[in-house]
Amino acid sequence: MKKEKNIVTVGGGTGSHTILSGLKNLKNISLTALVSMVDSGGSTGMLRDELGVLPPGDVRKCLIALSEQDDVVRKLMNYRFNEGSLSGHALGNIILAALEKVTGDFSKGVEILSKILKVKGKVIPITKDQATLSLLFTNGKIINGECNVDRANLQELGIKKVFYKKRVNLNKEAKLAIEKAEYIILGPGDYYTSLIPNLITKGFKEVMKKSKAITILPINLVNKKGHTMGWNVSDYVSMIESYLGRTVDYILFNTEAPSKKQMRDYKIKEGNGTLIHNDLNDKRVIGASLLSHVHYANDKGDKMADPRSFIRHDSKKLAKCIDKIINPSSRAKLTTGQGK
Amino acid sequence: MKKEKNIVTVGGGTGSHTILSGLKNLKNISLTALVSMVDSGGSTGMLRDELGVLPPGDVRKCLIALSEQDDVVRKLMNYRFNEGSLSGHALGNIILAALEKVTGDFSKGVEILSKILKVKGKVIPITKDQATLSLLFTNGKIINGECNVDRANLQELGIKKVFYKKRVNLNKEAKLAIEKAEYIILGPGDYYTSLIPNLITKGFKEVMKKSKAITILPINLVNKKGHTMGWNVSDYVSMIESYLGRTVDYILFNTEAPSKKQMRDYKIKEGNGTLIHNDLNDKRVIGASLLSHVHYANDKGDKMADPRSFIRHDSKKLAKCIDKIINPSSRAKLTTGQGK
Repeated sequence: MKKEKNIVTVGGGTGSHTILSGLKNLKNISLTALVSMVDSGGSTGMLRDELGVLPPGDVRKCLIALSEQDDVVRKLMNYRFNEGSLSGHALGNIILAALEKVTGDFSKGVEILSKILKVKGKVIPITKDQATLSLLFTNGKIINGECNVDRANLQELGIKKVFYKKRVNLNKEAKLAIEKAEYIILGPGDYYTSLIPNLITKGFKEVMKKSKAITILPINLVNKKGHTMGWNVSDYVSMIESYLGRTVDYILFNTEAPSKKQMRDYKIKEGNGTLIHNDLNDKRVIGASLLSHVHYANDKGDKMADPRSFIRHDSKKLAKCIDKIINPSSRAKLTTGQGK
Repeated sequence: MKKEKNIVTVGGGTGSHTILSGLKNLKNISLTALVSMVDSGGSTGMLRDELGVLPPGDVRKCLIALSEQDDVVRKLMNYRFNEGSLSGHALGNIILAALEKVTGDFSKGVEILSKILKVKGKVIPITKDQATLSLLFTNGKIINGECNVDRANLQELGIKKVFYKKRVNLNKEAKLAIEKAEYIILGPGDYYTSLIPNLITKGFKEVMKKSKAITILPINLVNKKGHTMGWNVSDYVSMIESYLGRTVDYILFNTEAPSKKQMRDYKIKEGNGTLIHNDLNDKRVIGASLLSHVHYANDKGDKMADPRSFIRHDSKKLAKCIDKIINPSSRAKLTTGQGK
């Protein structure tokens, strides 16, 4: 048997769910998902406020992605009540909250639910501290809380600093996973509310600097209104590298244009800065069709949540592209093109 | 390997939990729990009202009793939130409600949760119909709903009839279990709110009449205020036999007096009709010490629930006593005495 390759993903909920759903089907890999812990909206926010638990939503999505349980159990974990006092809550969130209460330790709870869900790999919260994401703007204004950051027009205000209100330490288990990693995949996901919150935990930059892992950055498919409008590949790369304190080794870039329906649903107009262009002439950039053709819509029961993105990566295409990097010998089987 | 003996229990929540916890450790038995579906109070009542689901509470207790999962998972299922909008709900109830919503079938949901909880045996709801327990009194008054019945002084009012507001059919799976049963154990549990609701489902009496199973009736440890005060063994037996349309084969009677602390906690006074006496001179009565010495108290988080009983059967003693009946050869190992 070949030695398993140690892969660590760093991200949040939906983006990590997508990439993990693909990666779990690759052979001879050992998979660890590091998950941001800043979500403060929707069902997760309510559970945090009311019960004082750590945010379960992003972890839940990663657990489901890696679960090898029957479909109905995975569906159950995502089930959202849409009536009565439980309205808006996803069952998996409620279970994680109860597990934290019963065990007194969120990580222990994640471990127990992982067993129940037959999770392939490991899901690790990036921190065990209660984390409140804060943004300081050039005018001195501060916005606290991931859900407030998510909705704000950050570009209009001008970001000066992304930080935590109180010190937030990198979880020791997460540190250990990074130290053992051979490949570290950063994203995909919202930059300010999913990816960067991981990178600014106390200790993350230090362990990344020492790491010999090959880093892979899948660039998002489209820019986010008020957050990254007008950004191109170089903007994403330089932003992440500044937080990492090192360069990234591979950059995955989607070369397929969204469909007309996706353009309409996502309100993409040519020239309005939503589409991302590859402005790097760089061998690190791997261009490939990474776009999903599934039509994503908001969960009707998800009354407490913000609109979900309608344009997502295709998890299989993304995994194939990563497989090409970690198993260069299987390159012949792949049809991904070079970045232009 | 010896042929497994087919045992069916009929009851509700706490009583069934107790007896199943003991029975599951007996060897060479196949265990099926038929569970009443009338609970309308507490967390269960709220889920019924708000979500229109079938009552999960009693089924949850039976699943936990038969679960061979780690202690922490069993504890998790019983975990009650005590803050916020989830306050008072037991997690297992919420999960069963979500499962019914996801699968569209309460029984299917019970099956899925049984797998997750590694349940030894089978838990079957006595009916799949929404059941509202009703009592008609001699003065023409009617009380609807199990939680209202539970609190009422039935003896003062004088019961004329116990019935269902709308027709409630015996679940086909429950019927099948009774047909295959070699031993049927009725109770322990509250008579009007746990045991009898099973016996009055449409079809129960008919299938019991045809059954060749040996029936066992563990008499409750104490009488319930306003329901069965002043009753002795003969009252319990004749009441049950009238609902069954046949005689019971064994009657298990606890011969150990409650401790002083139990007497105080349960407000038992000599001569106030709480203690049950064996007034039958009958070989069917098996007397034994069946009393638990564990001190049961109300779950602090259980704000929505009625006070739980403080005096319970010892599940091991109860199982031993039943083992004596189903495996007469192992009689020598047992120390139970004869009923006086």
